[in-house]
Amino acid sequence: MVSKFSHLYSRNAREMKASEIRELLKLTENHEIISFAGGLPDPQAFPVDKVKEIVNRLLDEKNGQILQYGTTEGVTELRKAIAERMNKRGMNITHKNVLITAGSQQALDLISKTFLDPGDMVIVGAPTYLGGTNAFKSYNAVMEGVPLDEDGMDPDLLAAKLHLLQMHGNHPEILYLIPNFQNPAGVTITEERRREILEIAREYDMIVIEDSPYSDLRYSGEQVPSMKSMDTDGRVIYLGTFSKILAPGFRVAWCIAEKDLLNKLTIVKQAADLCTNTFGQYIASEYVTRGYLDEHVEVIKTLYMNKRDLMLAAMEKHFPAEAKWTKPDGGMFIWVTLPDYIDTKEMFPRAIENNVAYVNGAAFFADHSGKNTMRLNFTFATPEQIDEGIQRLAETIKQEIIDFKDEKPSKKFMPDEEGLVLGV
Amino acid sequence: MVSKFSHLYSRNAREMKASEIRELLKLTENHEIISFAGGLPDPQAFPVDKVKEIVNRLLDEKNGQILQYGTTEGVTELRKAIAERMNKRGMNITHKNVLITAGSQQALDLISKTFLDPGDMVIVGAPTYLGGTNAFKSYNAVMEGVPLDEDGMDPDLLAAKLHLLQMHGNHPEILYLIPNFQNPAGVTITEERRREILEIAREYDMIVIEDSPYSDLRYSGEQVPSMKSMDTDGRVIYLGTFSKILAPGFRVAWCIAEKDLLNKLTIVKQAADLCTNTFGQYIASEYVTRGYLDEHVEVIKTLYMNKRDLMLAAMEKHFPAEAKWTKPDGGMFIWVTLPDYIDTKEMFPRAIENNVAYVNGAAFFADHSGKNTMRLNFTFATPEQIDEGIQRLAETIKQEIIDFKDEKPSKKFMPDEEGLVLGV
Repeated sequence: MVSKFSHLYSRNAREMKASEIRELLKLTENHEIISFAGGLPDPQAFPVDKVKEIVNRLLDEKNGQILQYGTTEGVTELRKAIAERMNKRGMNITHKNVLITAGSQQALDLISKTFLDPGDMVIVGAPTYLGGTNAFKSYNAVMEGVPLDEDGMDPDLLAAKLHLLQMHGNHPEILYLIPNFQNPAGVTITEERRREILEIAREYDMIVIEDSPYSDLRYSGEQVPSMKSMDTDGRVIYLGTFSKILAPGFRVAWCIAEKDLLNKLTIVKQAADLCTNTFGQYIASEYVTRGYLDEHVEVIKTLYMNKRDLMLAAMEKHFPAEAKWTKPDGGMFIWVTLPDYIDTKEMFPRAIENNVAYVNGAAFFADHSGKNTMRLNFTFATPEQIDEGIQRLAETIKQEIIDFKDEKPSKKFMPDEEGLVLGV
Repeated sequence: MVSKFSHLYSRNAREMKASEIRELLKLTENHEIISFAGGLPDPQAFPVDKVKEIVNRLLDEKNGQILQYGTTEGVTELRKAIAERMNKRGMNITHKNVLITAGSQQALDLISKTFLDPGDMVIVGAPTYLGGTNAFKSYNAVMEGVPLDEDGMDPDLLAAKLHLLQMHGNHPEILYLIPNFQNPAGVTITEERRREILEIAREYDMIVIEDSPYSDLRYSGEQVPSMKSMDTDGRVIYLGTFSKILAPGFRVAWCIAEKDLLNKLTIVKQAADLCTNTFGQYIASEYVTRGYLDEHVEVIKTLYMNKRDLMLAAMEKHFPAEAKWTKPDGGMFIWVTLPDYIDTKEMFPRAIENNVAYVNGAAFFADHSGKNTMRLNFTFATPEQIDEGIQRLAETIKQEIIDFKDEKPSKKFMPDEEGLVLGV
């Protein structure tokens, strides 16, 4: 419904619509349905006992601080612990380069507010993370997608796109990347490509957002250095988060940037929420400094690696020959490409009838292409659900292929008004 | 320092500056200084044992939920508990009118983003809460102040201001009020004035923000109905928070609005941070539904009432005859007016020399008037500090008055670059 005050809305607000995924995910709340749709961690991966130990100790020893307002920059101990951890991975920063944010989503919002005027351009992957495009669009920015292959974004295609845009007088301000185990495609940008992309960003004077929520979750292959660690002139803003390696419920993430830029982001954050919840920050800080994080990441990795392998094996066994998919070395997602004549959004009601859910791929493309693709999450469902769900999905795809060959029209999906669960 | 990427900044970001209060508060970190500056609750007012009991139970029984992502709207139990509580105070809402936000500051940001285009106008009190004006200004809005007296905003002055603005073709979109125990002035809008102000808002088609962080903290006088409870056409957005009645460290607050408008704010929030921290939301929910909140509010009220009385008595005893101040019936602040020839910002270095701090009043005026005023917080300092601090402040003011009469120039305050603690 349209609010009776909508005539007073800002230009930004008028353009903002409820996310399509939000509507789709509503359908997956039925408990019969096995959902590969949301990007949720496995609750088994939450270190409940460690959190309990930490919280009780903090409430005994530091209750005056952990329950009070904190500074906008974030809890100093936490910022120092993060800086130390990042430096072990090749960065060269201090806590003054670290801003704590309410999830990486808030960092995407703050960066957008800092750089984007209406009509400004952002270069994204095709496909790319929806939360990113939502943040950029909320400031009326324009997205341009660059296709990915199994090695992530192709620098040549990026350079060609930028050259073309420049010829038309356009100067994109931000390049948005998820270099490790990309959401949704699962692919990782190679080291060589990272260097080339940075060079191109320099040439075209763009800020690079390196969104890296999954970098600790590598199950196979060699670690690739972060783009921030290759950054010589401070144009990379790195985003990390505790959502996937501790728990999402704390909403504690971090943003690493050149100091003067970080100060600006801090001022922008102050007007947005004063500070990130202090309670969660202190918990995260203890979790890192006591060495629990490193210990627990190993547990999560084993859990998720097994799930990935299970899902890939089930797909190999049950999916029709027409389907192709990525084999991610980490992260949370597998990306499926079906024959051109299949529209995964139109196939969705059939999947729901078969009690299985996914996210249709077009949602991740700035230009709504990729109609024959879909994203599967392998971290949330149980092993039994993964096997059963993939069989149901395989069945759904096979029925759709047969229908196409028989020229039957598929059902239309009609989302209703009220949405609930978010798509991460 | 200016970032080397500042040429890429958005118009919004270019205009945003570090808050002056932030710089001033840095000076108060010296432990010798008794600070009446920040708007912090007394850590004694934190219900540590209840939080501990709740957290342990939640970690045992609901860890899969409290550590997971939540919906953008917020935890349903919490929204229902808030709706019930608000309805006991004369509102007529359901949980579908309630959006959980990361502190009321986030609600101010979301409302600003929803309604304010660059150059749009907001009517505020003169003086008013800095966090409000920071949020509005971050979308390049223009503030117009309406003077307050001991009964809050004067409807006649408001009507006159709006009439004048209209004659010049201006249509302000938002009226921002803190009707109970205003920050910084400590005054409360009478019931009659609330009705008149609502009528005027209707006539000029403005959204009213009723920011009400202190409504549970009344120490004397009769409760006045909220403006939201008098709202017949849904134009009031009510903001409440757990920061002052549980603890600020959770960053859990709520925003009440007409349903279609609430849906829009939810979409805006989704792009900003996906959801408020689930952990803190579940704690707040248990705190309300177990009846702990009502119990504990009584403890806080007694604590703060005594501190208010102490501060008022000390001021009565030590302040020079030239000083006037408000006698608030609740909240956290006393507002002091000194003779016109005193500039409280210029007096500040002398106060710091005397080891006492306040916030200079001009910071709370959209037009930077009120140079002879200051805000004193009475909730954070201990009883001993209150008595000693008021004596120091009285001494400072007396010295300033003598210097004026002797025509000595006062020292200039020079804030340095890096700020830390926020001003609430």
